[in-house]
Amino acid sequence: MRIAVDAMGSDRAPTIEVEGAVGALLDRPDLTVVLVGDREVVEAELARHPQADRARMEVVHAPEVIDPGEAPTTAVRRKPNSSIVVGTRLVKSGEADAFLSAGSTGAVMAAAVLMLRPIPGVDRPAVGSPVPSATGTFFLIDMGANVDTRPQHLLQFAHLGTIYCQDLLGVDDPRVGLLNIGTEPGKGNEQTLETYGLLSESPTLNFVGNVEGRDVIRGACDVLVCDGFVGNVLLKFYESIAGFMAEELRHEMEQQGVKLDLKRLYSRLDYSTYGGAPLLGVNGVVVIAHGGSPPQAIRNGIGVAARSVERRMVEHIAKRLGDPAETGEKR
Amino acid sequence: MRIAVDAMGSDRAPTIEVEGAVGALLDRPDLTVVLVGDREVVEAELARHPQADRARMEVVHAPEVIDPGEAPTTAVRRKPNSSIVVGTRLVKSGEADAFLSAGSTGAVMAAAVLMLRPIPGVDRPAVGSPVPSATGTFFLIDMGANVDTRPQHLLQFAHLGTIYCQDLLGVDDPRVGLLNIGTEPGKGNEQTLETYGLLSESPTLNFVGNVEGRDVIRGACDVLVCDGFVGNVLLKFYESIAGFMAEELRHEMEQQGVKLDLKRLYSRLDYSTYGGAPLLGVNGVVVIAHGGSPPQAIRNGIGVAARSVERRMVEHIAKRLGDPAETGEKR
Repeated sequence: MRIAVDAMGSDRAPTIEVEGAVGALLDRPDLTVVLVGDREVVEAELARHPQADRARMEVVHAPEVIDPGEAPTTAVRRKPNSSIVVGTRLVKSGEADAFLSAGSTGAVMAAAVLMLRPIPGVDRPAVGSPVPSATGTFFLIDMGANVDTRPQHLLQFAHLGTIYCQDLLGVDDPRVGLLNIGTEPGKGNEQTLETYGLLSESPTLNFVGNVEGRDVIRGACDVLVCDGFVGNVLLKFYESIAGFMAEELRHEMEQQGVKLDLKRLYSRLDYSTYGGAPLLGVNGVVVIAHGGSPPQAIRNGIGVAARSVERRMVEHIAKRLGDPAETGEKR
Repeated sequence: MRIAVDAMGSDRAPTIEVEGAVGALLDRPDLTVVLVGDREVVEAELARHPQADRARMEVVHAPEVIDPGEAPTTAVRRKPNSSIVVGTRLVKSGEADAFLSAGSTGAVMAAAVLMLRPIPGVDRPAVGSPVPSATGTFFLIDMGANVDTRPQHLLQFAHLGTIYCQDLLGVDDPRVGLLNIGTEPGKGNEQTLETYGLLSESPTLNFVGNVEGRDVIRGACDVLVCDGFVGNVLLKFYESIAGFMAEELRHEMEQQGVKLDLKRLYSRLDYSTYGGAPLLGVNGVVVIAHGGSPPQAIRNGIGVAARSVERRMVEHIAKRLGDPAETGEKR
């Protein structure tokens, strides 16, 4: 299996990407990593890993870089030799089975939609993220790629999340929850009220109803469906909590002269280590990693990409969403 | 000063309310508390506080109770003798200077809007909440009373929050932030994009720009403006975090055989102890407390109500929002 990795995407590129890729090769003997980026820079970084299995590491030259501040679609059109566009092209041509990038989420998404195209039946590809809860992990979709979504989009997100949970997280019949401001069916805004109806009527989804903000962390569902605006706010807030708590706890420990090792707890709560957010609903496996990812997150993200290919997730999405008979829903 | 308190609202009514009211009298010698509820039940509870200053405690009989599950407007119309309606009526008639309730937020809001009426210039009264951050407290508005808000509503929330911060939290020129999915002006959904323009153009607001989910906790602004849907999700999520962290930390402490006293930290993070969320934009002071409030929250909430009266907050809102020349904005 060949996974293309954007070597120029993260805040500390290409150090993080190369170290993550070297680690990923140790996890899977069937893996080849194709590092996409400025050849000279990437080779220099690779030279720092003499123990790496170079027979399973290739470099594809991509001299341009898309900055996070650039308008995604314009940048993708104007920079055909950027690492994001070249990596996506490798998937389209079949030279790679999947692509991982820690670069601009908007640009990765734009490249995927423009070049790989959405799967028929998917109006808006979405980005999901596994999030740690008290009982394990739930899958939040969408985490910011889509705002101003219509109820029909949220229904599709529910199916995309369900397939991801089945294929990647090993959950047979994932419980789908709708993020809302009350548990009763009549609660919500216009968007969630109508979405509640669509989710309830679906004969194939395991819809468990509305999930309030306070029930998110206790693991009330396996797939948490929401508009990308609120998903983004929630995830970024969650992300900042671990650091905030660390500060507060350090202060308490100092005051009380007590030492507690919190490394394990923080790594469990830090969702950036979970290894990347899959972009679901395009014709190809694309995984988006956090710009501030540590090497372990890149390594895990490559594993997520490899398993997505192995489990034939894209095929499952196409089968389920491409045929109204499969979901049993009126369109 | 006379503050009416709904004695039947909280999950453990009237125990919590009576204990909170008894405490509030100790905080302010100028205070009289009017307990509104079933007289027999309230008197029985009062009998358990023989040390209380009964000269400053009155009971107004209200035999009906509105349940949190009832449709707010219907319940307010059908239950004229409910504690919520009677308490609100005391404010309207001038027999009380303010009203606090830990009952159904929707019903308290419906009663206030129907009976006290919105202040001219306020299209939608909103509920705000002080929220603990790394640097102190910020004021989130709206926390769930209004969904599907228009940009003009969010602009009004910014003014309401600014006045609250000035009058109650002692912040001279409160920094107003707009909760959004990116810091750049071009980020957001349709609602926040347009709101950004309105807030930027206001000559009277101290608008500091977009605030992302990750910057909320570090105290990026004094007033955080958002639609009630996302505000509600965020607050309820925050609310659940302290409990979740307590569980996780207990586990770590057990494993490591270390004891850390976290009472102080948790009470700082638990926003329910902050004493209630003011309903802003109606002709009267109304404070909504959490249904699960401890007595200290009721006590603090009565203090918030008293200070709102003392600082003439309603008058300031009417002056600023009633006259376009005051905000300097085009309407």
